[in-house]
Amino acid sequence: MQLINDFKTVRQRTIQICAPLKTEDYVVQPVVDVSPPKWHLGHTTWFFETFLLQPYAKDYTIYDADYNFVFNSYYETIGARVIRTDRGNLSRPAVEDVLRYREHVDAAMERFLRQPLSEEIMALVILGLNHEEQHQELLYTDIKYILGHNPLFPAYSSTAAPQVAATDTPAMLSVKEGIYEIGYHDKGFCFDNELGRHKVYLQHYTISNVLVTNQEYTAFIHAGGYSNFRYWHAEGWDWVKNNQITAPLYWYQVNGQWMHYTWQGLQPLDPEGILCHISFYEAAAFAAWKEMRLPTEFEWEAAAAQFNWGARWEWTESAYLPYPGFIKAPGAIGEYNGKFMVNQMVLRGASEVTSPGHSRISYRNFFHPHLRWQFTGIRLAR
Amino acid sequence: MQLINDFKTVRQRTIQICAPLKTEDYVVQPVVDVSPPKWHLGHTTWFFETFLLQPYAKDYTIYDADYNFVFNSYYETIGARVIRTDRGNLSRPAVEDVLRYREHVDAAMERFLRQPLSEEIMALVILGLNHEEQHQELLYTDIKYILGHNPLFPAYSSTAAPQVAATDTPAMLSVKEGIYEIGYHDKGFCFDNELGRHKVYLQHYTISNVLVTNQEYTAFIHAGGYSNFRYWHAEGWDWVKNNQITAPLYWYQVNGQWMHYTWQGLQPLDPEGILCHISFYEAAAFAAWKEMRLPTEFEWEAAAAQFNWGARWEWTESAYLPYPGFIKAPGAIGEYNGKFMVNQMVLRGASEVTSPGHSRISYRNFFHPHLRWQFTGIRLAR
Amino acid sequence: MQLINDFKTVRQRTIQICAPLKTEDYVVQPVVDVSPPKWHLGHTTWFFETFLLQPYAKDYTIYDADYNFVFNSYYETIGARVIRTDRGNLSRPAVEDVLRYREHVDAAMERFLRQPLSEEIMALVILGLNHEEQHQELLYTDIKYILGHNPLFPAYSSTAAPQVAATDTPAMLSVKEGIYEIGYHDKGFCFDNELGRHKVYLQHYTISNVLVTNQEYTAFIHAGGYSNFRYWHAEGWDWVKNNQITAPLYWYQVNGQWMHYTWQGLQPLDPEGILCHISFYEAAAFAAWKEMRLPTEFEWEAAAAQFNWGARWEWTESAYLPYPGFIKAPGAIGEYNGKFMVNQMVLRGASEVTSPGHSRISYRNFFHPHLRWQFTGIRLAR
Amino acid sequence: MQLINDFKTVRQRTIQICAPLKTEDYVVQPVVDVSPPKWHLGHTTWFFETFLLQPYAKDYTIYDADYNFVFNSYYETIGARVIRTDRGNLSRPAVEDVLRYREHVDAAMERFLRQPLSEEIMALVILGLNHEEQHQELLYTDIKYILGHNPLFPAYSSTAAPQVAATDTPAMLSVKEGIYEIGYHDKGFCFDNELGRHKVYLQHYTISNVLVTNQEYTAFIHAGGYSNFRYWHAEGWDWVKNNQITAPLYWYQVNGQWMHYTWQGLQPLDPEGILCHISFYEAAAFAAWKEMRLPTEFEWEAAAAQFNWGARWEWTESAYLPYPGFIKAPGAIGEYNGKFMVNQMVLRGASEVTSPGHSRISYRNFFHPHLRWQFTGIRLAR
Repeated sequence: MQLINDFKTVRQRTIQICAPLKTEDYVVQPVVDVSPPKWHLGHTTWFFETFLLQPYAKDYTIYDADYNFVFNSYYETIGARVIRTDRGNLSRPAVEDVLRYREHVDAAMERFLRQPLSEEIMALVILGLNHEEQHQELLYTDIKYILGHNPLFPAYSSTAAPQVAATDTPAMLSVKEGIYEIGYHDKGFCFDNELGRHKVYLQHYTISNVLVTNQEYTAFIHAGGYSNFRYWHAEGWDWVKNNQITAPLYWYQVNGQWMHYTWQGLQPLDPEGILCHISFYEAAAFAAWKEMRLPTEFEWEAAAAQFNWGARWEWTESAYLPYPGFIKAPGAIGEYNGKFMVNQMVLRGASEVTSPGHSRISYRNFFHPHLRWQFTGIRLAR
Repeated sequence: MQLINDFKTVRQRTIQICAPLKTEDYVVQPVVDVSPPKWHLGHTTWFFETFLLQPYAKDYTIYDADYNFVFNSYYETIGARVIRTDRGNLSRPAVEDVLRYREHVDAAMERFLRQPLSEEIMALVILGLNHEEQHQELLYTDIKYILGHNPLFPAYSSTAAPQVAATDTPAMLSVKEGIYEIGYHDKGFCFDNELGRHKVYLQHYTISNVLVTNQEYTAFIHAGGYSNFRYWHAEGWDWVKNNQITAPLYWYQVNGQWMHYTWQGLQPLDPEGILCHISFYEAAAFAAWKEMRLPTEFEWEAAAAQFNWGARWEWTESAYLPYPGFIKAPGAIGEYNGKFMVNQMVLRGASEVTSPGHSRISYRNFFHPHLRWQFTGIRLAR
Repeated sequence: MQLINDFKTVRQRTIQICAPLKTEDYVVQPVVDVSPPKWHLGHTTWFFETFLLQPYAKDYTIYDADYNFVFNSYYETIGARVIRTDRGNLSRPAVEDVLRYREHVDAAMERFLRQPLSEEIMALVILGLNHEEQHQELLYTDIKYILGHNPLFPAYSSTAAPQVAATDTPAMLSVKEGIYEIGYHDKGFCFDNELGRHKVYLQHYTISNVLVTNQEYTAFIHAGGYSNFRYWHAEGWDWVKNNQITAPLYWYQVNGQWMHYTWQGLQPLDPEGILCHISFYEAAAFAAWKEMRLPTEFEWEAAAAQFNWGARWEWTESAYLPYPGFIKAPGAIGEYNGKFMVNQMVLRGASEVTSPGHSRISYRNFFHPHLRWQFTGIRLAR
Repeated sequence: MQLINDFKTVRQRTIQICAPLKTEDYVVQPVVDVSPPKWHLGHTTWFFETFLLQPYAKDYTIYDADYNFVFNSYYETIGARVIRTDRGNLSRPAVEDVLRYREHVDAAMERFLRQPLSEEIMALVILGLNHEEQHQELLYTDIKYILGHNPLFPAYSSTAAPQVAATDTPAMLSVKEGIYEIGYHDKGFCFDNELGRHKVYLQHYTISNVLVTNQEYTAFIHAGGYSNFRYWHAEGWDWVKNNQITAPLYWYQVNGQWMHYTWQGLQPLDPEGILCHISFYEAAAFAAWKEMRLPTEFEWEAAAAQFNWGARWEWTESAYLPYPGFIKAPGAIGEYNGKFMVNQMVLRGASEVTSPGHSRISYRNFFHPHLRWQFTGIRLAR
């Protein structure tokens, strides 16, 4: 019964996130990294249909064979998929059709979940819910991108939007040299990339108990941070020049004042606010300017119990690589994490748009170093 | 009063063309050449607001300053415009907002048209209506592209769709050498590119009284027309290879049978039907395979009184260039035609989706030689 | 014997054009439109080997089968070719190997030409010589590009370089309305695109007896010609902005003074000199700024006997299209002209680097409208 | 005196590597990653002129100010540089000019080295020699690419080419869990990225004492390794499909037999030979197919004393990141390593074309995961 309740809660939350949208907002894909909200609604539903109902639910008949083609994401195992850049070109299925698809699958899932289930199937359901929670976070980031790149700068909502709590008094925490244990070691759910609890040896380091603020980052901008190559990785510097980057994503200078796009539309920048929407390149350049550095993901995990986190995904200096003993699961589920372990950087923590209960100290998020549309931030180390 | 009635009729027809669409269909832009239907609705409205109401209607206040930014097309005179590839990324203004904008402008225009108007203003209104009729044709072509490139192949409408009449018994008409007059020479409306009535000297030629059928073109395909470079322009051959072109747009071979996307969805190809949706390159290659050629636009105009036309826009062997004495109008209106007079080929005639009363024997349409989403066809000459 | 002498003269002239080069200059290809001089040497030789020695010379054995692969240009008939962008990556065959190839083929050709030859074969030899003369002009243009885009700006030669004669007193010549005959009508050699002598009807026009000078064009620049979209075709305006064009090719503003790269290296611009190295877009924009236009190729040919020409290839307002009755020759030779008859503009005249005896009043050159590395100029009409 | 001798030896070796080349081979740049040999000759010379002679040698006058522009590589500190893709377009300075530049700088350096030198200057000289040895290796890899991508497949040399020694009897070496020390800890030269000797904690692992052979890799190919996405990273799979990769670089299947390009031209593949020229993606996919993995760079360093290495640069599963306490040197020299620490994978060992004395157990090489023109190989771990 707990699982049915969890299922309903998670599925319902996805709908609530979309509630402030107009039909048109569900359809567009302004850049390749963003998916239309309609697609998230369909894809998370397709997951349950494909990995649970089809193989395990007796008498279940597939809702629409074409939807498999439309809502598959990157699971090569499952067959031909819609080229990712084409998602924003699909006006059909319409939003109402996708919602009907959700209702159909939800009803079938609820019947299915009332039956006795094997451990393996329960694990798959929980994976599906965690998968949907990941897409809830992506929904927020994609919706912000869609509305924030519209010349009318429409507000998402004056009330429904996530809020970030205040921060602590800044201090550098000192962590002593030695052996630390890294990786998940509890009984609940975690992703496969967190498994393989293992020892690492860390040198002595210090790490900030707070995240960088808008004010601190503005100082970097005004000190010429974006026009001095010395602070940047070579690829970061190319990225700055090729894309004429001069500020974080969503920041605009209007009549000499810094504005940024928020859930309430275009607003003056709050200097005390926690910096958001910067790339790994920017995070590393800012740290270099401060004559500090980003922590590794191991340093972060070893110290995280001593500071507040959860407002921003925090860039680390660690590339996304397998833990010792990492083994890919067989079949399509095995495509989940391992195949992305190259050319991406690890983010630790969680963000203002992470679903409740979806964050863990061992959680490993990962993105390419130039991406900024996630709710990313900076914690400094030395 | 005639002008008010014309205005209402034309404006209403645009809405009717869109009536079978779902909200989502108004938003997407699958390729750069296609504009979202929502944009056509706004842009045709923006034309009347910008070129008539703003300069000439007393007390008119602009509906929304941002709309000028969003709905300008290519008029450099009027200020910054939305980059063309971005049109499909705009979920706002929503369809209902655009319709409200139309209603606002329509009401203001109807008030305005009841006043006494100068010749110049009346000419601008008529230009605006002809401009909107051009966009009505583009609406049909763009809607067909949007629905026809969706993996679900939704029908536009089982009843509302345009129909093409039957064709005549094929014959080659002979036209004798001599001087012919080319260009518009009547009192009604025409575009500036048709003006400059002038003499041309034509050699003797023959021209078909019918358009090429699907059956004839299928023979070209099955004879290996797409794999023999000899029939093709060098750039056409590159286009065939780079895009792996093997059939007209919207054609699919399913289990050995030719299907094509139509207003009623995916349907078996009618062999007797008039060929549609081919590029200039394909038209020229087909003609070369037939050991014939396309007519020039002058040959077409000199002979057109002797055959039925109007089902397809017909590719000619003429590049789009100014007539003798062509002069660009001053200001933004002057951007209408002259600036496109390079790298495009002339099409003559009209098509099944041309608005009633919008075709003339002197009408000059023009597109880049690789484009196929218009309702293009082939008439052979020798 | 005349043919042998002509053969030797033309072949020798190609070598002389390259004489001032260093070995390294023969190899590079700075842009796709430019071919390495080494390639021109090989390709013109390959023409005689492929179209004359192989099919017609008894006992001739091919010099090196791989050279067919390397030195074919765009003749699809003859087999796989080196992708055009790869030409500048080929360090082998070395220059000395290509010269040996030339000597081998020249010796075989001279033996071959001493035999009695059919009309058809003699026509092919003459075509080969005209083909080589075209490549002599391209050699000059490509050498200028290679040296003129080197940061050291090396001189080609202080003595060997082509010179341009002085110009006439400017005047507008008046040509009266009526029928004119266009196309080649003599007994010597011409290209297939000049054939099909035919009547055209021209309206009354005036045409300048001189070409535009550097001084006149500098006035256009200083009047803001490159920053006012009104003078430009839409595609020309995109080209200006995307490529940040602000002056003709090879022009540089150094300490407020206009310099340009010449055969003698970087030199101050001569205000009286004839303008060179502008695109069709620039030519048309300059004409629009002058409230004039470019002549059509028919207007040019009808008037050319009345003015001096030959210093610059002159852009016309005519697209490159077939004359009435144009028929492609069968086989590879037929690929020579017809397949380029789309998206290119006609140039008339000749230039300072055209080979002696290679110019005719009916000669039709053609290039894409954005290209500037040819010795192009502007003659105005109205 | 030792330093002068070392200087002469290293500088002379660069010339010897180029000895088998023709002048034309010095000029071309077939892909952006490859530099023309002429450029390597100039750039290594520029290093000594810029970082030693200019700042420290009394009365030294710069050889040619333009050379600074041409031969700078990626040192943003030093001023505008030639865009990297343009290197292959530069026919001047000619090879003989570059050799004269080398002689000039060598003579000045030898005079300079006879004077008493500070520790700091001696360190810079030694850095310059190590820098030149790195370019010696790149010269070999770039020369192989230039000749191996020429359709004539010219041999580099029948005698002068590097040779690879035979391998050992295969075995898996077992390394026990615990703390290991990583990084350089000797008195000689090392690069800054090797410094920061530090402890790491390794889990138990096994590592092969031999490198993968051509035969073993051919089995992967024939088992369909390149057409099964399961073995590949997502980006690796995209790379395989977009570039139609089906075998290592330089491999060609001719009449059913595997050939590969070698220093002696195109030769049958030796099944016992050590596999070479594979990307990180291929290395990781091969390991996955074997149900093994690549070692981390720490596992490699901890075990390397127990096996023979030096024939191939060996891909590791480690991303190129700073060691604890890594600090960039100030000024241009500081650009050497740190700014590349993103999106690259570490290679350990050395290769058949590494300069004598240039390899160390702590040496960290690094390349982007798709690159194959280095002499890369695979060592498996578990």
